[in-house]
Amino acid sequence: MNASIHHGPLSTAFPTLLTIDLDAVVENYRQLAIRADPAQTAAVVKADAYGLGVDRIAPLLWQAGCRFFFVATLDEGLHLRNILPDADIAVLSGVTQGSEVEFVTARLIPVLNDPGDVQRWSAACRATQKLMPSILHVDTGMARLGMTTIQAETLAQDRAAVEKIGIQFLMSHLACPDEPDHPKNHQQLNLFRSFRMLFPELKTSFANSSGLFLGRDYFGDLVRPGCALYGINPTPGKPNPMRPVVRLMARVLQIRDVMTGDSVGYGATWQASKPSRIATIAIGYADGFFRSASNIGHIYIGSIALPLVGRVSMDLITADITALPADSVRSGDMVEIIGPNRDVDQVAQDAGTIGYEILTNLGQRLHRQYRGDNPLA
Amino acid sequence: MNASIHHGPLSTAFPTLLTIDLDAVVENYRQLAIRADPAQTAAVVKADAYGLGVDRIAPLLWQAGCRFFFVATLDEGLHLRNILPDADIAVLSGVTQGSEVEFVTARLIPVLNDPGDVQRWSAACRATQKLMPSILHVDTGMARLGMTTIQAETLAQDRAAVEKIGIQFLMSHLACPDEPDHPKNHQQLNLFRSFRMLFPELKTSFANSSGLFLGRDYFGDLVRPGCALYGINPTPGKPNPMRPVVRLMARVLQIRDVMTGDSVGYGATWQASKPSRIATIAIGYADGFFRSASNIGHIYIGSIALPLVGRVSMDLITADITALPADSVRSGDMVEIIGPNRDVDQVAQDAGTIGYEILTNLGQRLHRQYRGDNPLA
Repeated sequence: MNASIHHGPLSTAFPTLLTIDLDAVVENYRQLAIRADPAQTAAVVKADAYGLGVDRIAPLLWQAGCRFFFVATLDEGLHLRNILPDADIAVLSGVTQGSEVEFVTARLIPVLNDPGDVQRWSAACRATQKLMPSILHVDTGMARLGMTTIQAETLAQDRAAVEKIGIQFLMSHLACPDEPDHPKNHQQLNLFRSFRMLFPELKTSFANSSGLFLGRDYFGDLVRPGCALYGINPTPGKPNPMRPVVRLMARVLQIRDVMTGDSVGYGATWQASKPSRIATIAIGYADGFFRSASNIGHIYIGSIALPLVGRVSMDLITADITALPADSVRSGDMVEIIGPNRDVDQVAQDAGTIGYEILTNLGQRLHRQYRGDNPLA
Repeated sequence: MNASIHHGPLSTAFPTLLTIDLDAVVENYRQLAIRADPAQTAAVVKADAYGLGVDRIAPLLWQAGCRFFFVATLDEGLHLRNILPDADIAVLSGVTQGSEVEFVTARLIPVLNDPGDVQRWSAACRATQKLMPSILHVDTGMARLGMTTIQAETLAQDRAAVEKIGIQFLMSHLACPDEPDHPKNHQQLNLFRSFRMLFPELKTSFANSSGLFLGRDYFGDLVRPGCALYGINPTPGKPNPMRPVVRLMARVLQIRDVMTGDSVGYGATWQASKPSRIATIAIGYADGFFRSASNIGHIYIGSIALPLVGRVSMDLITADITALPADSVRSGDMVEIIGPNRDVDQVAQDAGTIGYEILTNLGQRLHRQYRGDNPLA
């Protein structure tokens, strides 16, 4: 190997760069905790902390004072227990049949969603002769998980049973808190208050991220923000009170001129109506850039929005950069996919979805860089 | 811990099960190779073999006789080199600035997409004093990657330069091969023949999966199937000639009765028009179940299609199972998300996308099981 290659520029070969600002996550947690005070503020870190890396994020939230964490599945609970030996870790999907031992061994807190969960946790407490903590989930309007009114009433009548399953919190989940004027919010609040009268001794957990902006009535004693930690706007239609967390850049691979009538991409869905300049960029739907944003989405170069043209393909997108001066963009340049000019909520809108789905689908192939993660800094 | 817990049923706690049939991948490869013969059949294994696991799939394709593999990025090439020390591995995104040394060291074959790639590979060959193999990509209608006519003509006039960059194949890529009657197919074929006249000594690579069903004119000497290996129908609108590869099951967490007027899920987007039974199932968009299928998609229980109701959420979906006899479905049962009743192409249609995006977005949280992977069997 000749030195003329070795002494080229430093490797700039990575096609994408996903930057995750850990300081922003921590600051978002602190801001929400102040808002919730005196309620306790848990952190929802399911789905690998909304795709951003629970291994990096959970320890920093612990350092910031968070003591209660929610995950979706048993596997996620077991994984988080390895990271945070002393945290309270609740598993939202309940204690499914056959998982009781793993819950007990890893000191996970099941969210009891139905009489089956209650029965299994009761048996586990009896078997271990311990009163192990749990959360009782009542459904106020999601019709997804949680006890119905009749199921809760039946349980409430059996005080001896209730006292043997270690319930720490009575919990429910809001369906429309991102629409503050939706009548369902108040209906759910009233229904939650009715449930509460069945279990007046229990502490409560109600608000998620958006619920924290509906007023104190919606908080309960333990709030459960998720999306807002990761920079998603919990108040759609209003300025985002959270600090942005992700920035995603991708590299220009090639720039080409096309003539009037030339088509771009699969299915020839876009034709140039005039001579145009097209940049091909090294990110595609395998990286989580939604194909539904084909011919709709934008990228940014500097502060200039440039439209996607043609279909998003697996590894590549194509943008019309005719609006920029010739030679202002070159092969090798990085362009903004998510960032200060176009935040995750706007990118989601282009794809016909919500920021949550953008984050949880960020691909494994993206080069990831964490910022602000030095605990000694 | 009391034995009454230990002696319960075997753990059935995993919420999802993604089964990947490796025998089917190999059989699909063999079927395509027979169709392509005497052309050589490469395998496209980019994006982690379309999300299905390149570590498991690439060695089996090698055993089945595949000697040529295509990946999208340098990282994917370096990874595959560790798996297959002797394979030909081509990198579709070209030899970007700063990546020359890694290409040479790992014996990767760059797809030369523009004059910059040609210049860099030329310098690398000069520096190493070796004629290292490459593929010359000419654009016949994607306007994405590949040399334009003028660029190719300029290169062709410099025979000395051409002979120093080890070009093995002249390659192009079809934009609409899944629409056999699209006029663009024939236009691209004619344009590829014009390019070929510039480099008459080169072997060619043209067809992808769908191109293999357009007739021999479209094959070239090296065909590059991807999606068809993984069971996606390369002939949309006609019966799928490939064996299905993926099956995805998810577990019922809870079943509930709702009353007329009750809403299900976020945003209360679905209301029951009559008393209904809702199953909540442990899969969501964080697992790659597209949110765009909200209120559109179906799950199967046995051979009965049951409609999704309400929005897909991060970890859960909800289906209306009123059509089934009471007690025929229980909490803990597994239901079909992708499988014999609803293949990956149909699931994609429900989500407004293509099977490729379904496969590449299958989540990391899914429990994966490989079938037919015993090389000694």
